[in-house]
Amino acid sequence: MPRPQVKLRLLLGDGRTFGPGKAELLTLIAQLGSITAAGREMEMSYKRAWGLVEEMNASFCEALVTTARGGAGHGGAQVTELGYEVLSHYRNLVGAVEVAGANDLEFIALSLSLGKDDLPGPEDTVMFTKT
Amino acid sequence: MPRPQVKLRLLLGDGRTFGPGKAELLTLIAQLGSITAAGREMEMSYKRAWGLVEEMNASFCEALVTTARGGAGHGGAQVTELGYEVLSHYRNLVGAVEVAGANDLEFIALSLSLGKDDLPGPEDTVMFTKT
Repeated sequence: MPRPQVKLRLLLGDGRTFGPGKAELLTLIAQLGSITAAGREMEMSYKRAWGLVEEMNASFCEALVTTARGGAGHGGAQVTELGYEVLSHYRNLVGAVEVAGANDLEFIALSLSLGKDDLPGPEDTVMFTKT
Repeated sequence: MPRPQVKLRLLLGDGRTFGPGKAELLTLIAQLGSITAAGREMEMSYKRAWGLVEEMNASFCEALVTTARGGAGHGGAQVTELGYEVLSHYRNLVGAVEVAGANDLEFIALSLSLGKDDLPGPEDTVMFTKT
């Protein structure tokens, strides 16, 4: 029984958002040390990846990603301490859905792929007493 | 301190999704008894609202919304038992983020609007012993 996949987006006010795309980009920058390489992995242009990094940096009180100077920003990139913290808290939120909401996700998964008569419910008890 | 607003989308496989838009539409159909009126409330056309209802109905093992016959589907609409159940479990999932993830949401809120030096952390202890 495949579980529904959870996509979580946070609206941060003033049109700012943090969601699955930025979280993945941040994760890849941490792994690859490069905005260009991280963007390439996600099949986006350097310009698009850089735009998302600028959005993230402007959303928080400190930058989440810093870049080495030189080569018009094509130098290496590092995820900052705050960047790792934001990513960690975001992952906790997704985990909260998957753990605290496990039963709810299971109900939804079951209601997709099985007839409703097969779902557990008070009707089952009635069926057993009937026979 | 405003908390980030949580938007949750479920990927149900085969390109099917259930998220904030469909949940709101379902809620409004339950309140207003009409797909047209619910769509109007969300500033979408009848065609768009109907399309979303068809998507929802096709995603689950039974319809989430049924319509009265007559007037080319412009009759009344009802949310089914399964519709209410899916909506309830979806709301539980959003609630799980807000309750189980309260501390994570608070960290993110604080990191948006205050300098990082104001965030609670081990550094605070050091500062107190320094003075």
